[in-house]
Amino acid sequence: MKKLNIGMVGYGFMGRTHSNAFRQVNRFFDVPYEPVLKTLCARNPERANAFASKWGYESVVTDWRKLVDSPEIDVIDIASPNDTHAEIAIAAAKAGKSVMCEKPLARNGSEAEAIVRAVEAAGVANSVWYNYRRVPAVTLAKQMVDEGRLGRVFHYRAKFLQDWTISADLPQGGEGLWRLDVNVAGSGVTGDLLAHCIDSAMWLNGPIDEVSAVTETFVKSRKHNLTGKVEPVGIDDASLFLARFRNGSLATFEATRYARGHKALYTLEINGEHASMFWDLHDLHRLQYFDHKDEGRLRGWRSIHITDGDHPYMKHWWVPGLQIGYEHSFVHQAADFLTALAEGKSASPTFREALQTDYVTDAVLESARNRSWVKVRAADAAAS
Amino acid sequence: MKKLNIGMVGYGFMGRTHSNAFRQVNRFFDVPYEPVLKTLCARNPERANAFASKWGYESVVTDWRKLVDSPEIDVIDIASPNDTHAEIAIAAAKAGKSVMCEKPLARNGSEAEAIVRAVEAAGVANSVWYNYRRVPAVTLAKQMVDEGRLGRVFHYRAKFLQDWTISADLPQGGEGLWRLDVNVAGSGVTGDLLAHCIDSAMWLNGPIDEVSAVTETFVKSRKHNLTGKVEPVGIDDASLFLARFRNGSLATFEATRYARGHKALYTLEINGEHASMFWDLHDLHRLQYFDHKDEGRLRGWRSIHITDGDHPYMKHWWVPGLQIGYEHSFVHQAADFLTALAEGKSASPTFREALQTDYVTDAVLESARNRSWVKVRAADAAAS
Amino acid sequence: MKKLNIGMVGYGFMGRTHSNAFRQVNRFFDVPYEPVLKTLCARNPERANAFASKWGYESVVTDWRKLVDSPEIDVIDIASPNDTHAEIAIAAAKAGKSVMCEKPLARNGSEAEAIVRAVEAAGVANSVWYNYRRVPAVTLAKQMVDEGRLGRVFHYRAKFLQDWTISADLPQGGEGLWRLDVNVAGSGVTGDLLAHCIDSAMWLNGPIDEVSAVTETFVKSRKHNLTGKVEPVGIDDASLFLARFRNGSLATFEATRYARGHKALYTLEINGEHASMFWDLHDLHRLQYFDHKDEGRLRGWRSIHITDGDHPYMKHWWVPGLQIGYEHSFVHQAADFLTALAEGKSASPTFREALQTDYVTDAVLESARNRSWVKVRAADAAAS
Amino acid sequence: MKKLNIGMVGYGFMGRTHSNAFRQVNRFFDVPYEPVLKTLCARNPERANAFASKWGYESVVTDWRKLVDSPEIDVIDIASPNDTHAEIAIAAAKAGKSVMCEKPLARNGSEAEAIVRAVEAAGVANSVWYNYRRVPAVTLAKQMVDEGRLGRVFHYRAKFLQDWTISADLPQGGEGLWRLDVNVAGSGVTGDLLAHCIDSAMWLNGPIDEVSAVTETFVKSRKHNLTGKVEPVGIDDASLFLARFRNGSLATFEATRYARGHKALYTLEINGEHASMFWDLHDLHRLQYFDHKDEGRLRGWRSIHITDGDHPYMKHWWVPGLQIGYEHSFVHQAADFLTALAEGKSASPTFREALQTDYVTDAVLESARNRSWVKVRAADAAAS
Repeated sequence: MKKLNIGMVGYGFMGRTHSNAFRQVNRFFDVPYEPVLKTLCARNPERANAFASKWGYESVVTDWRKLVDSPEIDVIDIASPNDTHAEIAIAAAKAGKSVMCEKPLARNGSEAEAIVRAVEAAGVANSVWYNYRRVPAVTLAKQMVDEGRLGRVFHYRAKFLQDWTISADLPQGGEGLWRLDVNVAGSGVTGDLLAHCIDSAMWLNGPIDEVSAVTETFVKSRKHNLTGKVEPVGIDDASLFLARFRNGSLATFEATRYARGHKALYTLEINGEHASMFWDLHDLHRLQYFDHKDEGRLRGWRSIHITDGDHPYMKHWWVPGLQIGYEHSFVHQAADFLTALAEGKSASPTFREALQTDYVTDAVLESARNRSWVKVRAADAAAS
Repeated sequence: MKKLNIGMVGYGFMGRTHSNAFRQVNRFFDVPYEPVLKTLCARNPERANAFASKWGYESVVTDWRKLVDSPEIDVIDIASPNDTHAEIAIAAAKAGKSVMCEKPLARNGSEAEAIVRAVEAAGVANSVWYNYRRVPAVTLAKQMVDEGRLGRVFHYRAKFLQDWTISADLPQGGEGLWRLDVNVAGSGVTGDLLAHCIDSAMWLNGPIDEVSAVTETFVKSRKHNLTGKVEPVGIDDASLFLARFRNGSLATFEATRYARGHKALYTLEINGEHASMFWDLHDLHRLQYFDHKDEGRLRGWRSIHITDGDHPYMKHWWVPGLQIGYEHSFVHQAADFLTALAEGKSASPTFREALQTDYVTDAVLESARNRSWVKVRAADAAAS
Repeated sequence: MKKLNIGMVGYGFMGRTHSNAFRQVNRFFDVPYEPVLKTLCARNPERANAFASKWGYESVVTDWRKLVDSPEIDVIDIASPNDTHAEIAIAAAKAGKSVMCEKPLARNGSEAEAIVRAVEAAGVANSVWYNYRRVPAVTLAKQMVDEGRLGRVFHYRAKFLQDWTISADLPQGGEGLWRLDVNVAGSGVTGDLLAHCIDSAMWLNGPIDEVSAVTETFVKSRKHNLTGKVEPVGIDDASLFLARFRNGSLATFEATRYARGHKALYTLEINGEHASMFWDLHDLHRLQYFDHKDEGRLRGWRSIHITDGDHPYMKHWWVPGLQIGYEHSFVHQAADFLTALAEGKSASPTFREALQTDYVTDAVLESARNRSWVKVRAADAAAS
Repeated sequence: MKKLNIGMVGYGFMGRTHSNAFRQVNRFFDVPYEPVLKTLCARNPERANAFASKWGYESVVTDWRKLVDSPEIDVIDIASPNDTHAEIAIAAAKAGKSVMCEKPLARNGSEAEAIVRAVEAAGVANSVWYNYRRVPAVTLAKQMVDEGRLGRVFHYRAKFLQDWTISADLPQGGEGLWRLDVNVAGSGVTGDLLAHCIDSAMWLNGPIDEVSAVTETFVKSRKHNLTGKVEPVGIDDASLFLARFRNGSLATFEATRYARGHKALYTLEINGEHASMFWDLHDLHRLQYFDHKDEGRLRGWRSIHITDGDHPYMKHWWVPGLQIGYEHSFVHQAADFLTALAEGKSASPTFREALQTDYVTDAVLESARNRSWVKVRAADAAAS
């Protein structure tokens, strides 16, 4: 099998999920490439070496430009904080590398546009790790939509609830906490959590036309880990919006890190004329499905345990009844990326699709600032 | 509408549920009789008067023989402790009254046989308040069985878990606690809780042929409320048995008052070739239903919210989505009893059907004593 | 016990729940009055007589003014469509009757103000049947809030999802369908379903300061049952809004009759610094409770089965483990109303509290029309 | 880090889970060895080579004796059908290899005794892959027991429900179906599924003293894949038993492959004086926990989402809220095995512990044959 050399940027949480995906994919999927964990790039050499050793990277660099310049590297995978995405991705594209990028594509639509222009000009394969599309239950939901099982859609609702920043003693910025630093992250929960909800929503239910949003920063200042000083918090702690989809359906979206009792409760629900579906990340191996065509007396929400061979991706894992977990969604994305690559294609979501998500998050933040409804820009007309 | 005069024996928990059933039935069901709460019989005159006043009984007596002798009384309803059932029921039958009786029919099969003989000799209508049959979800389960939806049945399992007697300080005997007094109750959880499970099981899945049981009394002695002395506990605190049904299916049954965290968790499940069903009393308004004929990818346990007009009994209550509670099952039994009575019939479960349940509990207790499998006697051949 | 003569207006769904509440309350609660179902008022004499006979009303009138004028009547209970509330309530107040009214108090804040003025000028007891406050699980949630268990509140979310009007063949207007006629109902789901959500929300979490809403009418025209013609639909089929509470918490609210698979799924959740709670109407006998003070390893959402004697209202019903249903919330409201009346008070929610809910629904509809955030008027400063 | 060469026997379902465990363990756990997938042994060379290539084994042999004789191999891991365990394990022990073995240890207690004797005589490390002990929720349950949170235990119940052999068209024997061949498997669900339940049960609740069992073979004959003929089925399709633990608690156990709607529903529950716990394999990342010490009004079953850093094994994986799946339990066992090995110990369950489980399954089968209660032999006194 052809080997494909991966240059990984970043060794945080996402560096681990991506590395694991590349290591596991050939064990479970028949894909046309064998990814090789070639080079890890990270700024702290000591920790980079430890990470590389643990995961089996063959070499380590501390400057991502070395990855871009290396003729050995086939794919550059960006798993570093949001403020680094644009520069690295653009340089990687110019160097003709395939580029994978952790979500969100960039801190805002403007940065993301530049990235999209670069990969499209270079004609390189590209994909953003919106991994939740590849949770088998979510993929099954997409199949149901595509097969027309829902009929006209009336409602969509999504939320992503966490509670890990409630304490005012939690600092912001630096290792492990850059998601609280607006300069690095671009925004708070809007770009971090809502972006996931929006990506799934548009995949399942089409474009979002307009939004009305409200955001809040509950803890106004925190100690900054890099400066050591107490500084104003620039991110949004919570972000809620109403939306109207192009297909006429209405939606509520909500993300927060202040919902006590919820660790990573991403839920989505879609209500169609004929059927409805519900999924949540805390029980990611189940899809709740209601089919109005069932006999009246016996209608009920079906709790489908997504572990059978005829469920998306599942024939590659164990046997019916045995659930997979979170990281498997990344393995699926790696499998789809490698398959598409062999066909000269980019696996969805491409950078352009991810740009559309950034346009929605831009609109959400603008709406919250202006206290007004905001139309969402269309990425298919932009950035060309 | 023709009035039907009720003579109620007992004012405890069951006195309340029965009285409520008779008061409510005409408000929600079109039945051929209007029950009148004519006379309450109970030994303590002060409390009897208070109860009668609260529920609207027209008169009070302290000797049940007065009910039996009264030409005004049409139906004698026995809601007093188990040790009183036989004498009252037999006398009522001889006096030509219709007889309703709280479950179990008697303390054992032998007592129950005498009752069955009496009502059958007198030709009076009779019915035992095994109320859980008339929970709409359970009635729907029965419909599914009767329509052949399950195919060959392989397994049945039921349990009834409570935790209210764990404390060794709880006394036994007397008001509110006679269920712990073996002389009054006949047995412990076997006659109290398992009897419910067995009644439903035979209704849904046919006769039980043989059992292997184990029982335990965890707290060996308790203060007796009537004597004031600490005395050995004669009842079974827990009772478990394996069973083989006549249709070849296998079963586990369990009842206990020592299952911490469960108040009245009666659960039943039946697994057939084509479909399975599960119900539990703590969410009595739901039936879990699995249909293997559903499309493979979309198979799942359906949580059916039993509140629609096409669900058993439910068109008489509110609107879809609005659940009923525990006591409604008694209203349904009253409705069915009154309907059957007008046709000269006894509503199921008749005393003879309830005798069969007593035969099973007898076999369970015998099996536990003898540490052996025990064949269950057949009530349809007995007591005639 | 002192008798209290009830004059009931309306024999629809709510006429049944109210009548049942008055019939049942003395059986289960020790209250200072015994309500008597004295007179039923409804326009269709034949159906009124049938209803009166079923429920035991002593007499029937077809003009509500006769109730108002009758010296026998102590309480006028308005269970007729929304467009009748104001005129009847004001006349009843002027006649010195206590007044109970089904929710919403009126079709809009302006009508409601007039009613509030009338009852306050007359000094008569008044209460609106926002019954969900008296579901024991919701009352327990309120206790937790009042005891300070939640700390600072960050989020509130509520939705009320139904699916019964999806079919475009369903007509509007007339018997059983007046909720679809904007002239009678005042609005669609905003006044019908969101009003419940708003009442509970303000009870639990304080005043709502401002809202941003969107509404939709999915089916634009329907046959009108009274005119026989296909006419434009004037109501909102769906209504969603973002809200900011005075305590700084953020909220999403949603109501619709187009959420396939949901019959009457009213859900509410509140997230505080220290604890969170969730409740839904489809399992109304449970409260989900998360307490951050629990030991870390063992923290989890508790599913509290609200059937114990120390749960609100529950000692009056059965025994632990045995659930009550929908209509019991009305019995609780009747009990509280009668208790308050004996003390010369109005049971909450008073008409003035209900006016505040109408102000919120007014703001929601205005916001949806104007596509802008709208401040909510304060009822405590109004209508005096 | 010191390398540890693995010789794997078998490439079926368990060959995959074990191989994955050895590949993944160093990525997530700090353990004193780095396992190397050195040699795969399987009878079919073509499939063995494909498997070895997929998983990265360095070499392939078709005779397990070559593994035993190879000085390169440190650990022999037996993942082949049950009838091969004894011969291989005994030879491996004699050759001084550490031995890991898939459960059950052997087809019956007698075979297992010989294995135990061999590993104990040789003094080699040994462990059986009863992987469910290492599901974090189950490990947490064990911690709660060990910390005395439950107090006196009254009840235990476990079941393992599948439905994959209901069709009478399913053949028996040969590749993928040897579990239906009694000569290879030793028994049916008793050794396959109940063995898991029994291992967890004794780990959590101590020794089982006596059992009363019933078994059934619902489909009496099936085509045998190796002979091509329809032959009698020798295995038990379903196996149910009552048990008494040494600590006085009572139990029901049940396993079947005829429970329509359940794929691999292993559930366990333990009821103690002070607390109760429930777990099921279909939602393996949750533990249900009831603590009677919680305040009365707020008592409820807690659904603990076992994804936090203070839950067993979980700090090694992702972040709170993100669940792991089935195969992770094998990674945990590998980690514990390697850690124990470095200390010269055998990770639990040792072969001797697994022998005790075989004694219980022997007793179950004997009880079912003899229709009597059977005392369970004690492994701690046996096989020495």
